[in-house]
Amino acid sequence: MGAKLRIDFLTLFPNMLTGFLGESMLARAQKNGILELNVYNIRDWAEGKHKNTDDRPYGGGPGMLMKPEPIFAAMEALQTPGCTRIYMCPDGEKFSPQIASELSKAGHLIILSGHYEGIDQRVRDCLIDREISIGDYVLTNGTLPAAVIADATARYVKGVLGEENSLTFDSFNGNLLAFPQYTRPSEFRGMKVPEVLLNGNHAEIECWRRQCQIEKTKARRQDIFKTKE
Amino acid sequence: MGAKLRIDFLTLFPNMLTGFLGESMLARAQKNGILELNVYNIRDWAEGKHKNTDDRPYGGGPGMLMKPEPIFAAMEALQTPGCTRIYMCPDGEKFSPQIASELSKAGHLIILSGHYEGIDQRVRDCLIDREISIGDYVLTNGTLPAAVIADATARYVKGVLGEENSLTFDSFNGNLLAFPQYTRPSEFRGMKVPEVLLNGNHAEIECWRRQCQIEKTKARRQDIFKTKE
Repeated sequence: MGAKLRIDFLTLFPNMLTGFLGESMLARAQKNGILELNVYNIRDWAEGKHKNTDDRPYGGGPGMLMKPEPIFAAMEALQTPGCTRIYMCPDGEKFSPQIASELSKAGHLIILSGHYEGIDQRVRDCLIDREISIGDYVLTNGTLPAAVIADATARYVKGVLGEENSLTFDSFNGNLLAFPQYTRPSEFRGMKVPEVLLNGNHAEIECWRRQCQIEKTKARRQDIFKTKE
Repeated sequence: MGAKLRIDFLTLFPNMLTGFLGESMLARAQKNGILELNVYNIRDWAEGKHKNTDDRPYGGGPGMLMKPEPIFAAMEALQTPGCTRIYMCPDGEKFSPQIASELSKAGHLIILSGHYEGIDQRVRDCLIDREISIGDYVLTNGTLPAAVIADATARYVKGVLGEENSLTFDSFNGNLLAFPQYTRPSEFRGMKVPEVLLNGNHAEIECWRRQCQIEKTKARRQDIFKTKE
């Protein structure tokens, strides 16, 4: 039986991903056969003596663009029927828990990370099913965003998170920010854990936590809070 | 003379960062002495035989919380007068190019990454200057977000980007999405580069690019587009 989700990373910086893929929940899920994660170097599909992957933009402008040929060759070698091919870019659709949940059911994702000033538009027009942005800011390349997408998506694949962690994203999906949490010691440098958390009255604790969530969301995220009404 | 920006990462998964820090522009900037990037394992400040860094939450609930003691000890060992101490969390302020630009001038950043279900609230109350979120989604831990912040912030430190790349974020800061770009070959599998980019008329090219930016922004990001009026 194959993995529930295969993710192929297509990047010019495969080494950026090695640490990330070897650690934490994703490493365990790979070992357990739930995830299959592969990192491919676009340069391996480049031709010629210098294996160039970039060239100057038509019409002028700063920097270099990623050439279409190696990316077409790579994608055609990796893609499978029904797979979802993703390009990470700041002008893509905003990543969200909903998209993570959708992608977790795709079976096979190929995530293409750009570098330089961008990528030949024919790649975006012909090879890409979804363009995704992790936020309104610019990074030196798309490899970290690819890791972010993979991590958030993997959480939705059954068996990746331990049962006891599964509630975390429920609270976030519910459009309220998390409540404050405390662990031992009950007093640390004069700072005490709120009394209500120590008295064992679960109805009171629930009520206090809910109130904290509402207050924090109201204070920090009017944009989310309004959507509750 | 010291680096223009020192960034200390405080995490339970230092290996997640090794690949990221060894590659691309950040590696070069470290080598050139422009950036100083240090990764610290919170566990190194944990006490006792088992070097525990987590414990159950008061008041009940799933999962484990990061304990305050090792984080207080770590932060007190690393912090310098005037440094900015950041905690990565989904309920923090939304990361933006403006925040990246501010942080790039801080001189010294300490970025604390959470894991498990969260962190003792006393850490957030006492040790943290800014709580930052990279977007409305949940990850298995805060180490990737710390890398995202570092990467986006480093771009604003003078000398990190080559001169010719420096225009990229200007176009994004200008509240319009990027225009389509093309490189050689001028025809690839029957797909031609738009004629206007080949004719060498720079006024026409500028006009075409601007028009593309406006159309794309209007189609994809009404939220940004409206702010232009």
